[in-house]
Amino acid sequence: MPSVRDALRLHGGAVDLAGADTRATPHWFGGKQEALADIAAMEPRLAELQERLYAQAAGGGSRKRLLLVLQGMDTSGKGGVVKHVIGQFNPSGCHIHAFKAPTREELAHPFLWRVRRAVPEPGIIGIFDRSHYEDVLIARVRGIVPRTVWARRYATINRFEQSLHDDGVTIVKVFLHISYAEQRARLLERLENPDKHWKFGPGDIDERALWPDYEEAYEAVLQKCTTDAAPWYVVPADRKWYRNWAISRLLLEHLEELDPRYPPAHFDVETERKRLLET
Amino acid sequence: MPSVRDALRLHGGAVDLAGADTRATPHWFGGKQEALADIAAMEPRLAELQERLYAQAAGGGSRKRLLLVLQGMDTSGKGGVVKHVIGQFNPSGCHIHAFKAPTREELAHPFLWRVRRAVPEPGIIGIFDRSHYEDVLIARVRGIVPRTVWARRYATINRFEQSLHDDGVTIVKVFLHISYAEQRARLLERLENPDKHWKFGPGDIDERALWPDYEEAYEAVLQKCTTDAAPWYVVPADRKWYRNWAISRLLLEHLEELDPRYPPAHFDVETERKRLLET
Repeated sequence: MPSVRDALRLHGGAVDLAGADTRATPHWFGGKQEALADIAAMEPRLAELQERLYAQAAGGGSRKRLLLVLQGMDTSGKGGVVKHVIGQFNPSGCHIHAFKAPTREELAHPFLWRVRRAVPEPGIIGIFDRSHYEDVLIARVRGIVPRTVWARRYATINRFEQSLHDDGVTIVKVFLHISYAEQRARLLERLENPDKHWKFGPGDIDERALWPDYEEAYEAVLQKCTTDAAPWYVVPADRKWYRNWAISRLLLEHLEELDPRYPPAHFDVETERKRLLET
Repeated sequence: MPSVRDALRLHGGAVDLAGADTRATPHWFGGKQEALADIAAMEPRLAELQERLYAQAAGGGSRKRLLLVLQGMDTSGKGGVVKHVIGQFNPSGCHIHAFKAPTREELAHPFLWRVRRAVPEPGIIGIFDRSHYEDVLIARVRGIVPRTVWARRYATINRFEQSLHDDGVTIVKVFLHISYAEQRARLLERLENPDKHWKFGPGDIDERALWPDYEEAYEAVLQKCTTDAAPWYVVPADRKWYRNWAISRLLLEHLEELDPRYPPAHFDVETERKRLLET
């Protein structure tokens, strides 16, 4: 059966980001209103699958969990996706981790140190807003570490993700793909609204000037770090409604494949009912 | 102006939990449907106040933040409140912390050690699902530490909360008050639905047998640890719609008093607009 996973998944061949249509709506054949209705229809199924995942770990000792990794250029909508995803689940079973510039303590450790500490526990849905991929993106583009260092990290990341996979983590890596023009429109919106000024810094335009370098660094990531254990999905993200629909659908397909089950009762239901009714 | 804070706040006098009506709806004069409508009407205001709080810390160096502390007997709805609160805010600006039985590492430190680490950063809305109060509740009822130890903790907690208050933390402590009969109904519901069996353990009925001891321990907490820096609010919680309404209202009143403001731009808007338009 065709799925949004098949439609968005990379397989390791050459990637041409500039040539891809960021307004496309792969695997969706309706418009915005129908997509919003479909998102609403997915919500109870997502919520139930999450509860089963949580219950299976809490009551049954399962190690299964899900990790959504979000990457994309500035303004690509990572924060919007976090809000969207949490809205569809029980937030108590989710763990959001936003990766900022490494602290002094983090810099004193290998680059995956802070990432390992943020991996969701069994039963939990983790969301990484940025991730270890920054260590081959900004670190490469800005020359924070020499080439000999970042060039080795792709293989290190693949091994790391394989080990997570082997420990029950379903990894869903999403690149939110916006166009150069769309980023300009979104930055302009921030400048034109005084209530959004705090989200803007002149550094955002300096980073934007490096767009071709980031594009190249992303292409390397998408090509080198798509594995069977943890493939990349490229989500066209100029249209926020499609972006959200695609994320919900990706999560639904992965959770359905995981097929978590409520654990059986570890007690005799009749006995406990009688005990309770006596109180 | 009368407020829900005034209606629910304790002032340090004797507390009689068994005598209080857990189906009451203090400061609300409508029914369920009107309450749900009022909750929906509060949502945009809550979301904007949260964004301002976040922005003020991110762009203006403010230390202000809010910490909602949730306590209550088993099945009183702490998890439901977490879900409700997160639904009204941007989850990226919230930090949920659920306190479980202390780990070996946590037990090797003073009881507030793990709590200090979970205090929200400036700009963040923190939610404690259980808290340091467990150290004078279950620790007292179950005799986990001797009386001489737990008896000193009330004053320690008050000093700790005063120090948080002095560092910009607005503390909103809520006791979700359900009746003994309501707990029975909720436990029975879990027993009667196989999909809820994982939430139940025979230990829940053992704990329930200690209801009067917990009630006494809660009364001590509510009396000794209501301070000007961090008063307790008692929310009648048999009716979930009233519970959610009261929580939203409490948060709204506290955030409005905080009155967070967007920080001014640290750059020249015209210069930046020109730079952006050249890209």
